Amino acid sequence: MPTREDKLQSLGYSPECHMKPGAIYQPVVIDGTTAYVSGCLPFDDAQVLTSAGKVPTDVSIADAQKAAALCAVNVLRLLRQALGSLDRVDRMLKVFGMVNSAPDFDSQHLVINGASQLFLDVLGDAGWHARSAVGMAALPRNTSVEVEAVVRIRV
Amino acid sequence: MPTREDKLQSLGYSPECHMKPGAIYQPVVIDGTTAYVSGCLPFDDAQVLTSAGKVPTDVSIADAQKAAALCAVNVLRLLRQALGSLDRVDRMLKVFGMVNSAPDFDSQHLVINGASQLFLDVLGDAGWHARSAVGMAALPRNTSVEVEAVVRIRV
Amino acid sequence: MPTREDKLQSLGYSPECHMKPGAIYQPVVIDGTTAYVSGCLPFDDAQVLTSAGKVPTDVSIADAQKAAALCAVNVLRLLRQALGSLDRVDRMLKVFGMVNSAPDFDSQHLVINGASQLFLDVLGDAGWHARSAVGMAALPRNTSVEVEAVVRIRV
Repeated sequence: MPTREDKLQSLGYSPECHMKPGAIYQPVVIDGTTAYVSGCLPFDDAQVLTSAGKVPTDVSIADAQKAAALCAVNVLRLLRQALGSLDRVDRMLKVFGMVNSAPDFDSQHLVINGASQLFLDVLGDAGWHARSAVGMAALPRNTSVEVEAVVRIRV
Repeated sequence: MPTREDKLQSLGYSPECHMKPGAIYQPVVIDGTTAYVSGCLPFDDAQVLTSAGKVPTDVSIADAQKAAALCAVNVLRLLRQALGSLDRVDRMLKVFGMVNSAPDFDSQHLVINGASQLFLDVLGDAGWHARSAVGMAALPRNTSVEVEAVVRIRV
Repeated sequence: MPTREDKLQSLGYSPECHMKPGAIYQPVVIDGTTAYVSGCLPFDDAQVLTSAGKVPTDVSIADAQKAAALCAVNVLRLLRQALGSLDRVDRMLKVFGMVNSAPDFDSQHLVINGASQLFLDVLGDAGWHARSAVGMAALPRNTSVEVEAVVRIRV
């Protein structure tokens, strides 16, 4: 049976984590069965930010959805780095999806669907989550999307 | 003794939930005694968005407060749908109130008071919560207010 | 051995809490070993807001970092007020740092470092946290920074 790591790979994403915090925080903090995952940006394996600017003026909705998916991949990579295996992800609980938005943009929910679908594709039913998808005035490094999560883990 | 559902009704709101997620997420996710409620918009019973645009340029503070109250009603409707009864709401823990804000608007706390007061009116002391009230650049469907919550429930 | 209150004092901050909620919410809500701390603004001991406007147009990054540190101080003051002593703070879990941002500002992470460093300076390793640092369109009272937190406490 393919592992969740295999599923990530089959979608074109390495499960390896190459990110290092670029500021003063910890990527994942665990409290009992709850893991808090810091806001993830759409960095690729070479730590290049793949999507910068406001949606939809600088970045199209379709490209922002891809960026959102990569943010979700990076949430999973951080979890795997912290837990040793994605098998220990019991359930995505809450996702906060942030879109760097032009003032009149009103489809943040469509952009963040890119992240939500990735969680479902890799984790199956364990990927379902409560969520808000919202429009930020600006984001670090001018990323177009940022995703953070609260996750139930197996201890 | 009137139920919390009765109190909602006496304030002019049906306790019935007619909302369906318009994107890829689950309205309420439960983890032990904690319920995560997805961001709620001011939809009325006919699923019409009652308040769109930026505060205070497109929508007055007073109207945005009413919209915030309706967001809070929808948080409670989702909880009732998930739990069977509002009696199972043990305590509102944390509310995040988001106001679609003109760049110079500085009274998000007054707008979100509309939601906070609704929680107190329906739940009594169990309605008290920690909170942030903040100004977003833009929100899904151009809603003027969105409210999400973390809630302790009785299992 | 100096207490955490002593450390606050040595950094130039009184540990006393003089804040009163200016809206309908509770500063700290406790659920078991989890404390939810409401969004804190950079109020000084006289309840004067020390930093207002957008970063970096109205407020420099350096000044916003100082404001972020004061927000973090106020998070700790609220916790001490609720718990009796900062000794009962077991671990900062999750920090959400919000910067009132000009549309092109992309260094929210540097601003919020001011808060994160303060937690480390006062709490040591217990100060480490997961985090998102984001750019808001506007904030209550036109504050330039607001910080909220989820904290594990000793019961």
